[in-house]
Amino acid sequence: MKKRAREYGIRFGKYKTGANNAITDVSGVRVGHETIIEGELGGRLARTGVTVILPNKDIYNNKVFAGGYTINGAGEMSGMNQINEWGIMETPIALTSSMNVGIVHDGLVDYLYRKLPEIRDTRNVILPVVAECNDGILNDPYYRHVRQENVRAAIERAAGGSVDEGSVGGGTGMVCCSYKAGIGTSSRRLPWNYCLGVLVMSNFGNKDDLVIDGIPIGKFLRQGGTKEHMEGSIIVVIATDAPLLPHQLVRLSKRAAFGIGKCGSFAENGSGEIVLAFSTAKKVKDYKPSPTHPARENHVRNIQMLKNEALNPLFEAAVEAVEEAIANALFASGDMAGRKGVVKAIDIEEVLEIMDRFNYFDMKKG
Amino acid sequence: MKKRAREYGIRFGKYKTGANNAITDVSGVRVGHETIIEGELGGRLARTGVTVILPNKDIYNNKVFAGGYTINGAGEMSGMNQINEWGIMETPIALTSSMNVGIVHDGLVDYLYRKLPEIRDTRNVILPVVAECNDGILNDPYYRHVRQENVRAAIERAAGGSVDEGSVGGGTGMVCCSYKAGIGTSSRRLPWNYCLGVLVMSNFGNKDDLVIDGIPIGKFLRQGGTKEHMEGSIIVVIATDAPLLPHQLVRLSKRAAFGIGKCGSFAENGSGEIVLAFSTAKKVKDYKPSPTHPARENHVRNIQMLKNEALNPLFEAAVEAVEEAIANALFASGDMAGRKGVVKAIDIEEVLEIMDRFNYFDMKKG
Amino acid sequence: MKKRAREYGIRFGKYKTGANNAITDVSGVRVGHETIIEGELGGRLARTGVTVILPNKDIYNNKVFAGGYTINGAGEMSGMNQINEWGIMETPIALTSSMNVGIVHDGLVDYLYRKLPEIRDTRNVILPVVAECNDGILNDPYYRHVRQENVRAAIERAAGGSVDEGSVGGGTGMVCCSYKAGIGTSSRRLPWNYCLGVLVMSNFGNKDDLVIDGIPIGKFLRQGGTKEHMEGSIIVVIATDAPLLPHQLVRLSKRAAFGIGKCGSFAENGSGEIVLAFSTAKKVKDYKPSPTHPARENHVRNIQMLKNEALNPLFEAAVEAVEEAIANALFASGDMAGRKGVVKAIDIEEVLEIMDRFNYFDMKKG
Amino acid sequence: MKKRAREYGIRFGKYKTGANNAITDVSGVRVGHETIIEGELGGRLARTGVTVILPNKDIYNNKVFAGGYTINGAGEMSGMNQINEWGIMETPIALTSSMNVGIVHDGLVDYLYRKLPEIRDTRNVILPVVAECNDGILNDPYYRHVRQENVRAAIERAAGGSVDEGSVGGGTGMVCCSYKAGIGTSSRRLPWNYCLGVLVMSNFGNKDDLVIDGIPIGKFLRQGGTKEHMEGSIIVVIATDAPLLPHQLVRLSKRAAFGIGKCGSFAENGSGEIVLAFSTAKKVKDYKPSPTHPARENHVRNIQMLKNEALNPLFEAAVEAVEEAIANALFASGDMAGRKGVVKAIDIEEVLEIMDRFNYFDMKKG
Repeated sequence: MKKRAREYGIRFGKYKTGANNAITDVSGVRVGHETIIEGELGGRLARTGVTVILPNKDIYNNKVFAGGYTINGAGEMSGMNQINEWGIMETPIALTSSMNVGIVHDGLVDYLYRKLPEIRDTRNVILPVVAECNDGILNDPYYRHVRQENVRAAIERAAGGSVDEGSVGGGTGMVCCSYKAGIGTSSRRLPWNYCLGVLVMSNFGNKDDLVIDGIPIGKFLRQGGTKEHMEGSIIVVIATDAPLLPHQLVRLSKRAAFGIGKCGSFAENGSGEIVLAFSTAKKVKDYKPSPTHPARENHVRNIQMLKNEALNPLFEAAVEAVEEAIANALFASGDMAGRKGVVKAIDIEEVLEIMDRFNYFDMKKG
Repeated sequence: MKKRAREYGIRFGKYKTGANNAITDVSGVRVGHETIIEGELGGRLARTGVTVILPNKDIYNNKVFAGGYTINGAGEMSGMNQINEWGIMETPIALTSSMNVGIVHDGLVDYLYRKLPEIRDTRNVILPVVAECNDGILNDPYYRHVRQENVRAAIERAAGGSVDEGSVGGGTGMVCCSYKAGIGTSSRRLPWNYCLGVLVMSNFGNKDDLVIDGIPIGKFLRQGGTKEHMEGSIIVVIATDAPLLPHQLVRLSKRAAFGIGKCGSFAENGSGEIVLAFSTAKKVKDYKPSPTHPARENHVRNIQMLKNEALNPLFEAAVEAVEEAIANALFASGDMAGRKGVVKAIDIEEVLEIMDRFNYFDMKKG
Repeated sequence: MKKRAREYGIRFGKYKTGANNAITDVSGVRVGHETIIEGELGGRLARTGVTVILPNKDIYNNKVFAGGYTINGAGEMSGMNQINEWGIMETPIALTSSMNVGIVHDGLVDYLYRKLPEIRDTRNVILPVVAECNDGILNDPYYRHVRQENVRAAIERAAGGSVDEGSVGGGTGMVCCSYKAGIGTSSRRLPWNYCLGVLVMSNFGNKDDLVIDGIPIGKFLRQGGTKEHMEGSIIVVIATDAPLLPHQLVRLSKRAAFGIGKCGSFAENGSGEIVLAFSTAKKVKDYKPSPTHPARENHVRNIQMLKNEALNPLFEAAVEAVEEAIANALFASGDMAGRKGVVKAIDIEEVLEIMDRFNYFDMKKG
Repeated sequence: MKKRAREYGIRFGKYKTGANNAITDVSGVRVGHETIIEGELGGRLARTGVTVILPNKDIYNNKVFAGGYTINGAGEMSGMNQINEWGIMETPIALTSSMNVGIVHDGLVDYLYRKLPEIRDTRNVILPVVAECNDGILNDPYYRHVRQENVRAAIERAAGGSVDEGSVGGGTGMVCCSYKAGIGTSSRRLPWNYCLGVLVMSNFGNKDDLVIDGIPIGKFLRQGGTKEHMEGSIIVVIATDAPLLPHQLVRLSKRAAFGIGKCGSFAENGSGEIVLAFSTAKKVKDYKPSPTHPARENHVRNIQMLKNEALNPLFEAAVEAVEEAIANALFASGDMAGRKGVVKAIDIEEVLEIMDRFNYFDMKKG
């Protein structure tokens, strides 16, 4: 088990982390990975999988407020249109390889129909949230290996507590700044006892641009992880238990851009940099209005909202946690052989040495 | 006093109107006009003014949820950026001629600084809401006649109850589908005892395109009001006492497009068609966060939201009320002489006759 | 073969239609349907299909400028994020039932990978455009009947010329204002010899709200098509050969709202009303930049743009053509038995009679 | 004359600067400042002014493509609605204190009416671009000192070549991360001989958050510039001679967020972080369409567009240049006494010393 960035003394920002330094520190949030590593070059090679994030145990019947934002839109996050219209999310979130979007979409439909057969009668339809990055350096997109049962397995395996990072689930074949990357997560404890957690599927950038907590690591690392370049992407999911309204969650999503930028991204033309934020503070159920019902009570929800002026800690924490999650994805990954050769993990020792040459550790202590 | 469209038997949609069939039917909302008609062609001609809409008696200290939407953006509504960011509106809304935007903006600043000197110390700044249409057929934009005292007078005169329509306030020089138009208003009583009101400053369209409740009046009217054409605009303000969240108010704003379209607009390239909606249900005050304060209570608001599924009556009522407000602006206006000659009022008798040729009145009864 | 609205003397707007009064009047645009009607209630009932729209014969290598807009977002159009980021569309457009989105998405990937194996190596990924409406009154969404081969068949069958309307392709199970509806199309010839075409998959609204060219048909029709109500949707695709830039195509998309509104929609909370517009004027290929290449020529495209001031005819034509396409979808459909009983076609004779009671036909002549 | 950041060996990013390292390196772009420093505390104190940016010598008759983006919207940039609708900018850009927006708006109208009297007759109206930040720590917003003649003077004085930075023009009273700041500028030479320039009015952030080229200066600086805090803002203007389409300029604007974030902003709730980008590559004139004119040529423009895939250097350069412009604003400013006491300039020697403790200069050489 590799150590996480923080265990090496790298400290992003000023807020403390939650117990697991993971998105699951937001109470009730669970993460499940299904990793598919099969075949070799020349065969039906797969370096892919699916990662699911569940805001609670029955998201369809306990919908949550949510809001999303696209930094650069050369990517897909199905369902975001509905989320931003209603301010409400009602399905699990699935992260996968680009070419698996259709299959994973259908897998979520299949799962929800089986688990909640009433959907078929009441609402008929459900529009799941599936986001992707292009892992074509390591994975052969042609084969779309993920199956309905993989989606189901990821959901059923989803758990709280510590979260596997790196080359797992949807992150299996992902590459960031030329080094092997994938899933990373982090969290922050906030004033007034709120918590904010982030999970990224990190797949963006160029070696030379990589920055870790201000230090331009990429320019100094002697060797990149691969010479292949694809304009990558990053999917960011932000969870919080603070009572944010939908428009406040969109605002929170926009802050992820600052964190990604601080790691070296300038959002290339071909990049799908997409962010989704949700709040677990309020659980919302479907409702059938009766226009003739005289009482107002049935038609309104009593909710709380964090005052706008109290948002700053969340905004700042989101930036920190995104930076740390991206670093965690890099640190957790090992070398992987795949479609276009081997993508090497970042050399942590060398990273630390470069940071040391910048007196990073001495200065942070001081 | 001219009669309103409804008094002639023209019935837009299915919901009943409020007591005044005006935006002021939303409790607490007040409207004030300052009308400036001065000079003749060749001199310092003015056919302009300012209309203010106040959600309550002290909007700065009783901010309201709000959200806006631009159908076509060749127009100005200052302050909308902040409203859509925060979901909150904190100043009066002023409607005026295009070239008066700067002066009216400063007039609102002046008014607020005088009335609430504490702003200067606490917040320093305030970004007022000023929207405009181009009334250059009748008004000479060069002279920007509106002064700080006009803005103040409009605010001080603002009242509930019935609202003057037609060539008053910001609508003084406006022209719609070639006929004299200006300010119009309407309201709807909604299920669960909510109310929705609309006020328009109507200045868009071409004679032949004018439609009233489905009847293509414009094609049949023998004579237009003026041969001059400017690509016009319309500003729509929607008020409701239903507890809508900011993102729901943006959604409500978008429905105004349907009402405008039903009157014959296709939103010309040069048109500024801008909508702003607010809810009086919750009053919001400024707040200074104390990150160290241990209790959550200070940092959250308890609010209500109308359930999404209960929005349809509001959406439908907004369409109806926009249509009716546009017709009211036409019906209330008389002929006006100005910069490029006379703009005639629509001939109401002829309108009714055309509608009768379409059996409109018989069919509506039936 | 049922007659189209226009053949009964119903005239929407002022522009003339193209030769086929169909989206295919825009040169090079082709449409293909795959209709799946299988099973009975109690069995694996299907009333679904897929409709594809192809801007040209090899859209991946002849990408087109495009832009989309969401009126109400309770629906899916995959790929729109990328289209609005790049201003460019590179895949066929597929329309289908809501729960088939995943499968059709994968079907398009499969088709493109087989036809253009080089994608797998050069770009790896492609994000197809799949849009949906909820046809759960007639179709059983559970079974997701559409298969990869259906998608392929629809593409291979795609043709110019006249386009089948009503209960075909993605429109097979769709219902509009309680009557059987589905696919409809229309076109307009524009000044300067441009053409604009529209295709809708129409599935929105309530019986009483239905309006045809201003006449409130729905209120007068004695009998609805079904008592079932689902908050529907409409997908609108607009094609033109006029040289519009991406931001102009977004603007054009927004005008569809006016047309839909004139037919009686107020965009219910649960409605997915999504519009996509593209221009065939410029064909765009992928390109690999060489930062060291000294010449500018490789890095720029020479293109044309319609001047903003010349957009009005397109804006107006889009409104007209959307209205007519919606009517055509209703007029072309027959009764259909399905999941929740029979949905009847609109009674065209009764429609004409109601319009006649409004003196519609006399007045239009006159 | 204080030295600029680069003269101390601070190197932001990888691209070379233009001749002046200023927005004026984009050919034809001119900048003019009018600085108003008057009065003392207790009197009619002014620490304000106006800065204008002119894309060319007659922007109204040589309109340019433009696009803007709001990072956080608690601020004003009038005219942006129209710019993003048309993709075209037709007025000078003015930057000033928040409460001067109305007066400067009117000042631009006055200037344009006088210079181009034909506007009064042809188009009637013009919607100027005025953006603001809150300088209430040093300036007393109550007095709105800027007058029409100041706006005119700034325009008439506008010039190419080197640009004054720091406490000048609109930046006179601005404060960034607690230190005296204001106007800063920078430029980059791009592949294919294009140029990109940035000008900021910088007024955001908290002392501890300040970062310069990755080094967390703010945490180590012994003393802040002021203990007063206002949630600040930043206005960013990006110019380029590369032929970008309007939607590409919006995309370019979004990249400014990365640069601002790298300097320590997380876009506080009360911040107005607004970006506007324009391209000088194409000059556009107004046009009156003649629907009956048979020839297409009159209705289209022949233009060039940079291919999307060639945008990356511009995206990256925008990030670099924003960072450098922010640093330049800090480095150019001296101490200033004003409304709430003295705001000190950043201690450049101490900055350099801190950067040296991070081995910044050694490492950059290496």
